[in-house]
Parts: sequence; structure tokens; C-alpha cells
Amino acid sequence: MPTINGERLLSDLRRIAEFGRYRTGVHRPHLSPQDVESRYWLAARMTDAGLDAVIDGIGTVIGRSGKSGPKLLMGSHSDTQPRGGWLDGVMGVIYGLEVARAMAEDPATAHLAIDVASWADEEGHWGQMMGSRSFIGLLKDEDIDKARHREEGTPMREALRSAGLEGKPREHLEEGRYRGYLEAHIEQGGLLEAADKRIGVVTAIVGIYQYRLTFSGAQNHAGTTPMPIRKDAGAAMMRLYNAIMDKFPTISGPRSVWTVGKLEVEPGAPAIIPGKAEMVLQFRDADKVVLDGLETALRDIVADHEKKGPCSVEYVNLSRTMPTAMDGRFLDAIEGAAARHAAGKYMRMPSGAGHDAQIIGLKLPAAMMFVPSIGGISHHFTENTADADIVLGCQVFADAAANILQDN
Amino acid sequence: MPTINGERLLSDLRRIAEFGRYRTGVHRPHLSPQDVESRYWLAARMTDAGLDAVIDGIGTVIGRSGKSGPKLLMGSHSDTQPRGGWLDGVMGVIYGLEVARAMAEDPATAHLAIDVASWADEEGHWGQMMGSRSFIGLLKDEDIDKARHREEGTPMREALRSAGLEGKPREHLEEGRYRGYLEAHIEQGGLLEAADKRIGVVTAIVGIYQYRLTFSGAQNHAGTTPMPIRKDAGAAMMRLYNAIMDKFPTISGPRSVWTVGKLEVEPGAPAIIPGKAEMVLQFRDADKVVLDGLETALRDIVADHEKKGPCSVEYVNLSRTMPTAMDGRFLDAIEGAAARHAAGKYMRMPSGAGHDAQIIGLKLPAAMMFVPSIGGISHHFTENTADADIVLGCQVFADAAANILQDN
Repeated sequence: MPTINGERLLSDLRRIAEFGRYRTGVHRPHLSPQDVESRYWLAARMTDAGLDAVIDGIGTVIGRSGKSGPKLLMGSHSDTQPRGGWLDGVMGVIYGLEVARAMAEDPATAHLAIDVASWADEEGHWGQMMGSRSFIGLLKDEDIDKARHREEGTPMREALRSAGLEGKPREHLEEGRYRGYLEAHIEQGGLLEAADKRIGVVTAIVGIYQYRLTFSGAQNHAGTTPMPIRKDAGAAMMRLYNAIMDKFPTISGPRSVWTVGKLEVEPGAPAIIPGKAEMVLQFRDADKVVLDGLETALRDIVADHEKKGPCSVEYVNLSRTMPTAMDGRFLDAIEGAAARHAAGKYMRMPSGAGHDAQIIGLKLPAAMMFVPSIGGISHHFTENTADADIVLGCQVFADAAANILQDN
Repeated sequence: MPTINGERLLSDLRRIAEFGRYRTGVHRPHLSPQDVESRYWLAARMTDAGLDAVIDGIGTVIGRSGKSGPKLLMGSHSDTQPRGGWLDGVMGVIYGLEVARAMAEDPATAHLAIDVASWADEEGHWGQMMGSRSFIGLLKDEDIDKARHREEGTPMREALRSAGLEGKPREHLEEGRYRGYLEAHIEQGGLLEAADKRIGVVTAIVGIYQYRLTFSGAQNHAGTTPMPIRKDAGAAMMRLYNAIMDKFPTISGPRSVWTVGKLEVEPGAPAIIPGKAEMVLQFRDADKVVLDGLETALRDIVADHEKKGPCSVEYVNLSRTMPTAMDGRFLDAIEGAAARHAAGKYMRMPSGAGHDAQIIGLKLPAAMMFVPSIGGISHHFTENTADADIVLGCQVFADAAANILQDN
């Protein structure tokens, strides 16, 4: 069994957190100068570990093993949310690197091959999981031509040119090379902490259905327009959201979640009745049947409100990502390793967040493992995980990886 | 009875609409270059009408009569909303000017005195009705020192300097000079049109109570935070607004209105549970008892939601303007004139919008008259009133003014 070096692991994590440090977290959106710098550092660390490292034409860093034995792909992403945490993503990349090093150092596992990847733009500054999608052939050149930074509007081609990646080939999955894909990540929620567990064995990545709901009424003066003749688009939006809040709990699964995180009214002045309102609704579940049930309920609620008036309601599906089940054999391997290193301190759970594993999982057997997030915080610079949990997680992961590769 | 000159009236209205013309409307916020230019034009037109005109230290234009008879103050405002209508405000100013001219032309009324004012900044780009408040002594020099443009942040002192008004005295109400104040305005709503009336006799200007409601929850990941432990500030806001929509109709008056025109959630991303939400609620009624009842209901609803949780709710009163009753004798004069010129085509109604008359009405008997807004539209460049209604309204107003001044 490979034994990881906890000090080396933590030291690498702390070093890469210097690229784009923001207070106790990191600001390192994909292809920002700090992100590009960190990718060159990462490629160098992979080379040091004996891997053949490249940064490809979309920014993915991949280090390939030259070993002849069975191979496993491990990784995650090293780009971050704006002013995000120091572990969200990159922990899984450094886990892969440390597992590769630990395996090489143990004569019993030195022949086993670990390839390590940091997928480009998991956090979606330019698109949706562009690195992992590119790797399995789901991203066309035209997609990159069209991609622009979600806030700044810069063309991605321009950013790739600035990063020195223009014209570089994009790396692709070599058929038959891998037994599968493993990804570790911070939980980004509080379930492990609340249950006093240290390892989450991820059973599935939830699917996400997302919609834009647009309410059209009549903009008017808030003083001179009597209530009975108003067409207040803001009021219509809030009425409809209340119907969702009343209905969804009656038809959802035990772990379903639904959220309106973004909403606005136009023109947005205290003395003007909103003529238009818009909100984005998303819901998530690990079961497609539940997701489809929520979608049907949403359609009925919209139809009902359309019929009642006085505002018209339009809803558009923005995206549907399907739930991805993790590989059962890999889950057993992670669970077995967790039982050896953290007896009684692990649990099975779905991932409520999206991850590159759901993309790579389309082509390879895949599995994920979580470590606890302190206070359940993520996407914020105060995100953190106890050092001991970071080290424990990596050891469990190394053990599971060796187990998968040694399986005959 | 003075006979107004409809062509002269419309011609002046069309001329002043050239200052800041925007499509079929006008963009002329107080102290914008176009606004300043229009004030010099207005002062010159007052001088042509035999009035002694000044532009004072806050931008109010006032033309005083040198006649010895009883005096009436008439006016409104000539500044506009951004990209607003061509009549909102300035129609009442030009009515005053035309009534002064018509009276002077009729030997029977030539001794009667009309002073005409265009109050500064009724539309509130720098504060609240600063011109009329200044005129009756409610505005301190320090208020002007502190005032900044609501969008651009420019200090008002700087704008006054650019307008050439720095150091000019502010004009004040001379005690005992006037029998009262009359203001005409477009309705800014659709009640007259719906009732097929051409003249609105304004009984009162509604009071407005306005509040900011702030909801504090816990910002978190929309995928990894289970529903039972969420503190979704956006959901809390919508729940509370629904309680308002359910409760207010049961305790409001027949003409009460309430509006949430401005709301937002933070951080406002589809996949993040809002940690904070804020909305501005206002309600209006001509009866203070009704306003106080709505305030009590709001307080109870907030307390109820605070108690239930999971988010905390804070509410702050932003302003309370009291309902202003119009002078009964003046109302009768306007109604009598309307009966003579538009038999069966007039009605009594409150004003749902605020006007300078509610400020001047604190010191003088005051009354207002409305003409219909086509389609009820205002605060938009498409605002309009039929020429025939503009002319009719001015004749009614001249007749009412003469009646008030000839009363012994």
C-alpha cells in the first residue's frame, strides 16, 4: 500500500495557493495571469514526479506516466471561483500528484501508472467544464471561437493567445488507456461535518435542470395606477415562486434542492410598477425521475399562472445535466480504503455540485471522494478543511487507487 | 372671464419641449444644460408677459406681477424625469403664464395679479421638491451643500455654479401676498380616460410611506446545502411580500396602492443561495388613518416572519409624507369652471403622485387640477395629452383663478 507524504502534499497545496492569493483564499479564474502561472508551476511539479506534462490548447494540464502497468486517470481543476477558496478544485489535482509520487516510491506499486490532470475552466468563466469536455471530444473549435469571459466579455482565443497557448493541440482521451477516473474534492456542504464523518464516498453527481422565467406586465406609475388594473410583473414573479415553494416539497426526493439565486425587476425604481421581472430557477437531484417530476410541476404552475394572469409568464429551459452514477466497483474500493484508515468516519452521499467527473464519467468508469468543508463553506475565501482531513483523504485515495489498479 | 389663447399656449409648450427633446418627449433633469437654458427662456417669456422674472439661487423661476389687486400664485415644475414626457410639470407652468396673459388682456380682470413659478427639481434629481421647499423656508443652506445628483454624484453647488446661479439669493414666500396657490398637471394615470372625463378636480394629494426591508440569511452553495438547513434570504423576501399581498387588500382603502418597485438578492448568481435580500415597499393613500393601518399590518407581518425564521428581517422607514387636503373653496371654483366649460366631463379624485402643491399647501390654501394622460402613461417619452384637453384645461383654470380672485 502506497504511503502518502502529508507534509509534501500540504506544502504543494500551500505553494499553489500563492498564485492569486486573496486574503485566506485564492482568486484564480481560468486563464487569468495567476492561473496561467500556476499551470506552468503545476506542469513542472508533474515533471518532477516523473510524469510527461503538457499544457494543452485549452489550458488543461495533463501529466502522463510512462509506466507499463495498468493506468488510472486522477485529477480535478485548479482554476477557482472569483475570491474563492484555496482547496476548491486544486486539492484533487495535488492528490493525484501525491498519489503518483507515493506509488512510485513503494516498490509494490511502482509499476502502476497514474496520469494526473487539471481540467481547464471547471468554474465556468468561459463555458461549462471546457477542459474535461474537450478531453473527451465534446468541445468543438467553434465553441472556443465563440467563448467569451462571462464577466469581462474577452474572447477566449485572445486569452489563450496571451497565455502562450495559441495553436497548441488539445489533448484527448486515448481509448483503452485507463481503468477509470478518480476525483477528490472538498464537500462544499456541511453534511459530513454535521454527521461527524471525515470521508464522503460519492454515489452520484446530481443532475441540474435550470430555467429562466420571464414575467411581462405593464410598467406604470406606482401612485396613479389603481391596484385592480395593475399588471405588476414583480408581484407575479413572487406569487409564482411561492407556488413553487408550496408545491416542490410535496413531490421532491429527500435530497432534492431548488434555488432562485438570481432575480430582477425592471426598471427597478421604488415608485415604478415593474413591467418586467425575471428569475433563474434551478433544481437538482441524483434521480432523473425526480427531476422530471419537478419539471412537470413547474410547467403546471406556469400554465396556471399564465391562465390566471394578469401578467404573462414565459419559461425557457437553460440547461439539463443528467445525474451521473459513480462506478460501483470504484465506490467499493474507496469505501474499503476509508474503512481501513477512518473506521466509522465515512459515509455514502450524492454530490450536489457538478464536477469534471460527470464529464469524464461519460467515457470512463469514474468515482469521487469528498473531504469535509469546515462550516460547509465554499465559493468563498474563508473555505477550509482541517489539515488532518486533507492528509487522511489523500491516504484513503492512494489506497483506493492502488486497490483498483491491483485488481485482476 | 379671461379667454385663453390656445394657439399661444400650445406654441409655448412646443417651444420649451425643444430644450432637451428626446424622441417624442424630453430629457431635462434639473440643472442639466438644457434645463438651465429652458429657465432663461421661461424667464424671458414671463418678462414678455409683463411679469418681473428672476431665476433664484436654487433654480426656481418666479415671475411676479406688479398689479395692485388680489394675487394668486400659479405654477408647477419644468424639470423632467430622464427621457420623460413633454408635459409632465411644464404644462402647469405654461398654464400659469397663459392665465396671467389672458387676465391682462381682459379689461374685467386686468387688475388681478398672477405670479407664476417653475419650482426647481420637483423630479428629485438632487433632493425632494427642493424649489418649493426652499420657497416656504424648509430648505437650509446646508441641505444644498450636501445635495448631490442622485445618479452622477455631482455636488449641487457645482451644478449651480455651472448654471451661473452661485451666490444668487433664494426667493421666499412673502407673507400675506397671496390668496393661495393653484397647480395644474397631467393626471399620470388612466382614471380620467377610463371614466371618459376631461378635467380632474384634485381633492387631496396622497401621503406616501416608504420602507426598506432587509432579509439576512446565509449565503451558500445551491447544490450542497440541503433544504432543511437553508437560510435563503431571497425566499424569505418573497414569502413576506406574499403575506403583504394577502393582507393589505383586507385593510386598505378603495384607492390605496402599494408597490415593491425595487428588489435585489445578493450575490445574485443562479447557483448561490442568496445570503441577503432587500426590497423597497411603499404605500399611498389620501387618508392618514389608512396609512397608519397599513404600517401596523406591515410591522405585524415583519414580526411574524422574524419569529418564524429562518432569516432575520429588518425594516426601516425611509420616508412618510402626509396626505394633503386641497382647499375646499378652491375645489369649488375649479369644479364650477369645469361645469361651465366641460359639463359632465369632470370628476373629483385624489392625486396618487406627489406634487409641489403639497409643499406650498403647507403655507397657503392650495388646489390642483388634472387633465387626462393618454393611455395613463407618464414618466416616459411617449406621455401625451390631447391638444383639445390641454386647451380646455387652461380655460377652466383661468376661469377658476379669476373666480377665486374676484371673490369678495
